[in-house]
Amino acid sequence: MPVDPDRLQAVISAELAQRRAEVVTIDGRLAPLVDLLIGFVADGGKRLRPEFLWCGWTAAGGGDDPATTAAVYRVGAALELIQACALIHDDVIDRSDSRRGRPSTHRAVAKEHADAGLTGDAEHYGVSAAILLGDLALAWADDLVAEGALALDALDRALPVWRAMRTEVLAGQMLDLLVTASTTTDPAQQEADALRINRYKTAAYTVERPLQLGAALAGGAASTIAALRAYGTDVGIAFQLRDDLLGVYGDPAVTGKPAGDDLVEGKRTLLLATARAALTGQLLAELDAGIGTPGADVDRLAGIIAGSGAPDAMEQRISQLVASGLAALGGSDDSPLIGDGALARLTELARLATARRF
Amino acid sequence: MPVDPDRLQAVISAELAQRRAEVVTIDGRLAPLVDLLIGFVADGGKRLRPEFLWCGWTAAGGGDDPATTAAVYRVGAALELIQACALIHDDVIDRSDSRRGRPSTHRAVAKEHADAGLTGDAEHYGVSAAILLGDLALAWADDLVAEGALALDALDRALPVWRAMRTEVLAGQMLDLLVTASTTTDPAQQEADALRINRYKTAAYTVERPLQLGAALAGGAASTIAALRAYGTDVGIAFQLRDDLLGVYGDPAVTGKPAGDDLVEGKRTLLLATARAALTGQLLAELDAGIGTPGADVDRLAGIIAGSGAPDAMEQRISQLVASGLAALGGSDDSPLIGDGALARLTELARLATARRF
Repeated sequence: MPVDPDRLQAVISAELAQRRAEVVTIDGRLAPLVDLLIGFVADGGKRLRPEFLWCGWTAAGGGDDPATTAAVYRVGAALELIQACALIHDDVIDRSDSRRGRPSTHRAVAKEHADAGLTGDAEHYGVSAAILLGDLALAWADDLVAEGALALDALDRALPVWRAMRTEVLAGQMLDLLVTASTTTDPAQQEADALRINRYKTAAYTVERPLQLGAALAGGAASTIAALRAYGTDVGIAFQLRDDLLGVYGDPAVTGKPAGDDLVEGKRTLLLATARAALTGQLLAELDAGIGTPGADVDRLAGIIAGSGAPDAMEQRISQLVASGLAALGGSDDSPLIGDGALARLTELARLATARRF
Repeated sequence: MPVDPDRLQAVISAELAQRRAEVVTIDGRLAPLVDLLIGFVADGGKRLRPEFLWCGWTAAGGGDDPATTAAVYRVGAALELIQACALIHDDVIDRSDSRRGRPSTHRAVAKEHADAGLTGDAEHYGVSAAILLGDLALAWADDLVAEGALALDALDRALPVWRAMRTEVLAGQMLDLLVTASTTTDPAQQEADALRINRYKTAAYTVERPLQLGAALAGGAASTIAALRAYGTDVGIAFQLRDDLLGVYGDPAVTGKPAGDDLVEGKRTLLLATARAALTGQLLAELDAGIGTPGADVDRLAGIIAGSGAPDAMEQRISQLVASGLAALGGSDDSPLIGDGALARLTELARLATARRF
């Protein structure tokens, strides 16, 4: 049984309407800023984290009583809010102009600054407001998790997972920053770094921990939780490897980002590290000169990477990771770890999250 | 009975050492960044928020059993962590180079970038890391509040206060940003804006809500909580008015900031709004031309403000606010709202927080 997207959106909308009212009580002039955050969360993307949360809940035997599941949906809304914080702050850090086919938050605020005829540096104003809006989203996410888990009398089980998840994603982002600024050109180090960043910045945060959090809310057995986490790590890394491929070869109409955006940003992906490991001489030099260079010929760079065989290697790795992730859910036929319904949905989600055009 | 500063520092140190270990497990290269955050929190400032938290706890009848008060100290540590987030992000927003007499966090990270020979824009690297370190501090603060309140079985009482406090301080910061960028020169509007920013960005966050949070943890009576909040609003605003005076006339050795820093930053204080309301003609024009202008003659600007009578008006207002705040704690002699010990400490703190050289 998948998450009900309308119900999730209704929970998000109701929660944010209440928060908006609190802010507007403080000062009505803040409404346009909060509305940017609300629009960002409503716009929403794929709701992958609530999906995995819900899978964890059902896999661990959480029921479908509406009163109980209301609390699970509130935690699902929290995952969308913390994701909003991560993306809004990430866009500032990456100096990204667009997100999901629209201006990124700091850009949108900078435009409002100019339109409203305010004084000072519009760009810095946009960055400043984006920092604070991300903070708001993070704080509100925490409130929702605490309230949801408290309603389920599961706070002592949920808190350690929630804490680990936030520390991991922030540490993963810091590591990304550090690695992007490092001068190492050693392919083995680059591969190890890219995999580690994938693991913490994406896999744990997107799949493993949301699954574990859902199972913790339901009071799942340790063996079930271990299986979900193993699945989550593998499928989560595969999800990021697909995202890396889309960042170079994806259709902008699907990704919501300009073609080859990752190349221009100089993102240190496993795809790039694998290509660098396979290349030598002139092609390697040309690739290195172009990566992270505004105005570089991204088609040419994408072609060099394709010629290295790295995309094929990534496709293979994605298939292997999906297979090993699904295998981890197995248990024996006599004592299955995960019920049929949740198993079917986890199988479906593994394919959706790593599909070529998702 | 005041907060025991050594015990508070021990709780902060133990907590952050555990968090540091979690981050270093993810990647050891992150240690220097986390250590910057730990150093920032350890360096600490005045621990005003834990002081008021503790006053709220004792005023509402919270006991001094070490096992119970350990949880209160954890919440006190959380207040120091959320303050670290607020200051680190504020320094990015205000582009402040220094804090407490040392380089601000984004500046310190930018220096590490240069020292370590990393690639890319050192300044943007510093800002990026500071955003993420502030996020970490915010997330860890939330964890500590949830854990502390859970241990006291007081989460349902504490959560609404904690939520309101975070929304208020972030809304106050956004309002500050908005007002600083506005083009209004109407003194009445400027006075109203400055007071509202004081209320939410400082008074509620520094005094009122910490007091209320401590009382909520102790399960205090509604009448006690109402009295503490009334005291907190008045004393909190007075505290900010003192801070505004120190921002113009304070000794850099005491404030840890360059002399007249608020004038260079163009901070929209009640002091400035009051001066503008009293001035006309050439002096007003000279003041307006200098405020927020790098390289302006801050001694001259401070002299113009002094000549307007605004500092004297602020001194009067501070005295009145401290008096009305203390009066709110009174109750009748037959049924005092606050016990003698807490009352004495609240009286002392009101004077300390608004003293000329604190």
